[in-house]
Order: sequence, then C-alpha cells, then structure tokens
Amino acid sequence: MSRFFSVIPVADAVTIVLGIAPQPVTEMVPVESASCRILATGVMADSDIPGFDRSVVDGYAVRAADTAGAGDAIPALLTCTGRISMGQPDGTLSLIPGTCAYIPTGGVLPAGADAVVMVEYTEEAGETVLVKKPAACGENVLLRDEDFKKGETVFSPGRRLSPQDAGVLAACGCGAVAVARKPVVGIISTGNELVPATVVPGPGQVRDANAPMLAAYLADYGCIPKVYGIVRDEKEAFEAVLKKAVPECDVVILSGGSSKDDRDMTAGTIAAMGAVLVHGIAIAPGKPTIVGRIEGKPVFGLPGHPASAFVVLIAIVRPLLDRMLSVRMPLQRTKQATLSVNIPSQRGREEYVRVLLDGSVATPLFGKSGLLNTLVRSSGLVRIPAGAEGLEQGCEVEVILW
Amino acid sequence: MSRFFSVIPVADAVTIVLGIAPQPVTEMVPVESASCRILATGVMADSDIPGFDRSVVDGYAVRAADTAGAGDAIPALLTCTGRISMGQPDGTLSLIPGTCAYIPTGGVLPAGADAVVMVEYTEEAGETVLVKKPAACGENVLLRDEDFKKGETVFSPGRRLSPQDAGVLAACGCGAVAVARKPVVGIISTGNELVPATVVPGPGQVRDANAPMLAAYLADYGCIPKVYGIVRDEKEAFEAVLKKAVPECDVVILSGGSSKDDRDMTAGTIAAMGAVLVHGIAIAPGKPTIVGRIEGKPVFGLPGHPASAFVVLIAIVRPLLDRMLSVRMPLQRTKQATLSVNIPSQRGREEYVRVLLDGSVATPLFGKSGLLNTLVRSSGLVRIPAGAEGLEQGCEVEVILW
Repeated sequence: MSRFFSVIPVADAVTIVLGIAPQPVTEMVPVESASCRILATGVMADSDIPGFDRSVVDGYAVRAADTAGAGDAIPALLTCTGRISMGQPDGTLSLIPGTCAYIPTGGVLPAGADAVVMVEYTEEAGETVLVKKPAACGENVLLRDEDFKKGETVFSPGRRLSPQDAGVLAACGCGAVAVARKPVVGIISTGNELVPATVVPGPGQVRDANAPMLAAYLADYGCIPKVYGIVRDEKEAFEAVLKKAVPECDVVILSGGSSKDDRDMTAGTIAAMGAVLVHGIAIAPGKPTIVGRIEGKPVFGLPGHPASAFVVLIAIVRPLLDRMLSVRMPLQRTKQATLSVNIPSQRGREEYVRVLLDGSVATPLFGKSGLLNTLVRSSGLVRIPAGAEGLEQGCEVEVILW
Repeated sequence: MSRFFSVIPVADAVTIVLGIAPQPVTEMVPVESASCRILATGVMADSDIPGFDRSVVDGYAVRAADTAGAGDAIPALLTCTGRISMGQPDGTLSLIPGTCAYIPTGGVLPAGADAVVMVEYTEEAGETVLVKKPAACGENVLLRDEDFKKGETVFSPGRRLSPQDAGVLAACGCGAVAVARKPVVGIISTGNELVPATVVPGPGQVRDANAPMLAAYLADYGCIPKVYGIVRDEKEAFEAVLKKAVPECDVVILSGGSSKDDRDMTAGTIAAMGAVLVHGIAIAPGKPTIVGRIEGKPVFGLPGHPASAFVVLIAIVRPLLDRMLSVRMPLQRTKQATLSVNIPSQRGREEYVRVLLDGSVATPLFGKSGLLNTLVRSSGLVRIPAGAEGLEQGCEVEVILW
C-alpha cells in the first residue's frame, strides 16, 4: 500500500482518502442548534400540517354559496352566530345557510363553512354582517394537510439544515434531530522555526499561522478542531504527539515540514506508527502532501506555507470531511467570473491560483509562494485542471470564495 | 414619536430602526475562534513579516554573480561551507565569493548570499557543489518585510474575519483580537394556539415554528439567541415576559399575533412599557410589523407566519444587527438568476417572493401565505422594489439565498 515519493493525481489521492474515511456517526441536537448541521435521517411529518382547516386572514367564515353575487351595491346579509377564538375551537359552532362567524387569522374554520371573507370586504350591523364580495369555495382557507400530509417525507438525509428548516422540523414535531456528529480534528504544527502568535519571533523564527487558520476553517466547516501546539522536528516529539492525538481525534492534521528532510521524517514517523498511503500529489501548491493512517485514523501531512496548506485542505482533506459528515453538497461558496488575463499552468498537475474579484472579473494575484498578504488581498481561488495548460483571458471560471 | 397604524415604506422603517440601534460593544476572542466575527479595530503588523530574508525552496544559498553563465555542460563549481538549520541562524556563516551553503525551505539566508538555487539544479561532489543553472539576484528568496512591513495596516475594522485571516492575525502577533460582541436577542412566541415542537397539537393548535427558526438564523448571523418560550395572548403575560427579557437582552423579538386584535395588544403593551415607533410597513409579506423601544432596547413584533417573520427579519431586523455588529458588508449569500415567468406585484410596497433556482433560472413558488412547504422547497427570495409593478420574465434578478 505504501506509495513513497511517487506523485499521484488529485483524483487518485481523493479516492485513497475516501477509502480510509471513518464511518459517519450520528448524534441528536436540539432543532434550534441544528442550523448548518447535516441531517442524518429522513424526517417525515408526524401529523397533518396544518391539523385543521385554517383561516389565513381576519374575517368571517362563510358558506361560499351564501355570498354568490354579493357586491357593494347588493351585499349578502348573513347572521353572525359566533366568534372563533385562537386555539379554542368551538365544537358546537356549525354554520347553517345564511350565517357566518368571525374568525381571526389562524383560527379553525367552523363546521359548515368553506371560505373566509376578509374583514375589509364586510360591515357589521348588529348581529348582521354585510358581505360585499363573493367568496369562492376554499378562499382564504389553508386546508388540513395542505402543507404536509401525515407520513409525508419533509427532509431527506444529507441535507445541510437552514434556519427555516429548523422551523419546519419543529412543525413536524422534532424537538431534536439526528445529525452527523462533528468530527474531531487534531491540529499539530511542526517546525523548529515556529513560535506561537503571542511570542515575538527571534532570529530565524516565524509565528505559526497554520494552526489558527486550520482551526478556524475546520470549526466553520462543522468540525471540532483540537490544537496540539507546536512540535519540534524530531522523531520522538512527533511520535509522542501522535500517540496522544490519534486516540483523541477522528482525523489528525500535521502541518509544517517545508523542507524535504522534514517531510521525510513526517512520512517516516507515520509509516513507523501505521502506513503512508500517499506521499506527493500533482497539485500546486501542495505537492509534498502526505496521507497516511495510524490505528485506523486518517493522518495528513500538510505543507508549511499557509496558502499551500489551505489548498490541500479544500482539495484533499475536505472530501474526507464531507464523507464523514455524509454531506450531499459541499459547503463552498463559489462565484462565476471572467478571467482578466491569461493564467499559464503546467499540464499534469492541478493548480490553484489566488484571484482578486472586482465585480465578476477575476484577476490572478501572482506572487512568491510563501506570501501571506495574497491570502488577505485575494477573494478566492481558481482551479486549473491537470489536463489544461492554463486558462485564457476572457474565459468563464468558478472562483472558490474564501 | 408614536406612529400607530400608518404603514410606512421599508426605507423609512429601516431609518427608524437604525436610529434606535444600541452602540456596538467590543470583546476579545482567541484568533482560532475569530472566524466569521467582525473585527472591531484595525490590526497592523507588529514586526516585519518575514523577519529575515528567507529561502522558499530547498537548495543552496549562493552569490548570484557566482552562477552567471552556469549550465548543464559547464556548471559553476562552488565550495559548500555550511548547512543552515531551521530556526537556528548561524551568525558566523558568511558566504565569500566561490562558496555556497545548503539551505532548507524557510531557512535564513546567510550573510553574503543573495539568491537560492533549487537542489534539483545542483549536484554534490564532496565539498564542491555543481550549480547547473544561473540564479538571478533575489531568486527563490522572500525578502525581510516583503509580506508585511512593521506598522503596516493588515486589516481594517468592520472586516468579517475568514479562517485565513485568523492565520494572518496570528502571524501579526495577535493571540486574541477585538471583535464586536454578539448581540443577545430575546425570542418570544405569542399565541394561544401555539404549542412547542414536542407536543402533539390538539384541536386548533399549531406548533411554534418561529422560535427555532429565528434562534437558528440569529445564531448563524453571529448573535446569541435567548428563547423565552410561548406566551399566551394576554396583556399581563406579555408584560411579565417583556419585564424579564428586556433587561436580559440587547434586542427583543416577539413573533405571533397574526390577527389584528393580537397585534393591537402587542403594540399596546409595548406602548405602555415604552414606545411604538412603527406599526405597519409597506412590505409583503410582513405588513403588520411593529417596531418599538422599551428601556432603550429595540423591541420587534414580527408576524406569526414563519415565511413572513423571516422576510421581516432580513429586511428590517438585520440592518439593526449589522449596525450593532459594525458590519461593513451584510452576510448574505446571493446569486444572479434569470426569471422564468413574470411576477406581478403591487406598486407601493416592497415584495419578497420565494423562488426555486434551477441553475441560474429562478421560478417563483406562488402559494398561500401560511405555507411552510414553500420555505423548504424554495431556494431563496427575490425582492421586488416598492416602485415596480412586478418583474418581467427574462429579467436578471438577485436571489437572496436561504
């Protein structure tokens, strides 16, 4: 299974990654907290919605036939025999021909009634109500089960729930709902040159930008990030942190090891503790990526440059998270845009180029690979497929928005 | 100040709402948790980034002049006088003409060197290194402060932070960052017909869908929702819950009161405890919306139908939240689309129509106003301005995505 030092296509790497994806696990969450979560099971209406014929306006419940031909000049005269109260249906009230009943919005249509006339088209005169407009049968009435029938499927599994969905789930009787459990993802930063954000870098040192970036991205993506801090480039240190992180997490991401020696040590440590499945992917930036497995858990070795780590995160790691979350549609905002200039690319590797969007015009931000400022200045990434020798000015591209 | 029963334009309502917006409040959060939060202050680089000239490849640090004219046939022969280690700059190492030093990616460029040759273009022969390609001055080197200069503004206030921003903030020395505090928004459901999701509705009863929907939306939007449950349509009950909620929250939202009597009681209670500023907005759905203020806190009365409540939430309440969060750009995903059919509308009111997107074609889902299923089936909303008599088939629209 070991694939040392042979660069493989992105699609092959993703296939390998999906092959080692842990099974999705389900948990129950209250519907108020279920927005953005992935529904694990289908949901059906547990009863008819609404459960009764309901007025959608303030007005008078009538028998439609009684209002035929009614108008301003010759109103229909109906006797008001009751007033409907919200939530308290009057079982004894039944409209006979020539009668009506006041009904508020949302009120239960009384027996005998088949329509509601809006209050604006009526006039009260003692116990008599003048109806100045004919009502069609069913007018201003939401029928029992018109929204959802008892037993009808309302949501399918794999749906990313919206706030509106939370409301509809409540209407279907769900106080809590089964969703994919958030994967716990361990984040380990490696490198003798790294110091935390709160330390002023000494000579030759740089601050660790990857751990906060990865943690923030993973939290946004519906995972629970677990940051293990900075580890020196030493085999013993790697082994110790992996021994701790692997049992505590569903997935572990190492980032760092920009030089070949460091990457080899990362791969060697993973191989010694489990297996290395991928070492090198035809992707730019991000070629020296490592995919392995320890005790059945996926372990990634991401490049040290934040921009490279980010590209590998969305191209290689995200498919694994989507599988673990049973996502049908990846959560990725994109925008169609037109390229302002040619982007050259090397055939045979998938390339991700940072672009700045101005309206729907995308302009690539070229720059040295280690720069952070293009991450801040750019709007997102454009993917150039491995089979292309670049993209031409004026062509339509999909920008993967930050 | 009181504006009872006079329907006012959306823009006027928003102006009134912004006029009562509480002042933004700031809090510190760790950068790992800062994604999606709104930056409250500008951030500058506390030091040069990087803090030293840095190699971006594995290779040999050289004096570029020494490699002039080098090629496969006639390589430049340089004496290797050292190896750079990560994070441990060797202050004594200085390249004199004719020498080079091994340098890993990210390593500190030694004194005297001005370029790096990738290891792929070199060959070791004992202490001599054969360089087979000329290096330009500065090649493969990230210069000190090339990314950010000390004191340079990296982020402006009002930015909604991304995961990449979290990484760059860490690089700038921010372990924590000042962001707008999440507004606490109270949610009160009103209506004698309402029961919670976990109760099977009896005759005339319906489940409360609004509270979970509003809570989920507000949480997604960066607020802290506080649900106060269902309150009966009685003045004493309203007063009691408002007396509790107003001091505990920054904003209070009542929803329910679909009938005129109930709305009048909501408005009357708010007026008695504070002031009603708006009662009726030229918006469809959502006309019977109430905006008031109690003890300096904004209080909204939203319609009972979930679809109507949602429209008022995004059109009227959201501008208030944006002001409280000091948001420069509202967080709203939209998509350009083409209308598949005409949508008629009444001039003089702003209308929001639910649409289904198929690629970039938007088709309106017409239906009775109380339906929940169109919330689930639709992709988003199309806004028809108050000045228009509808939108024509084939016209470009912006769909406000759920």
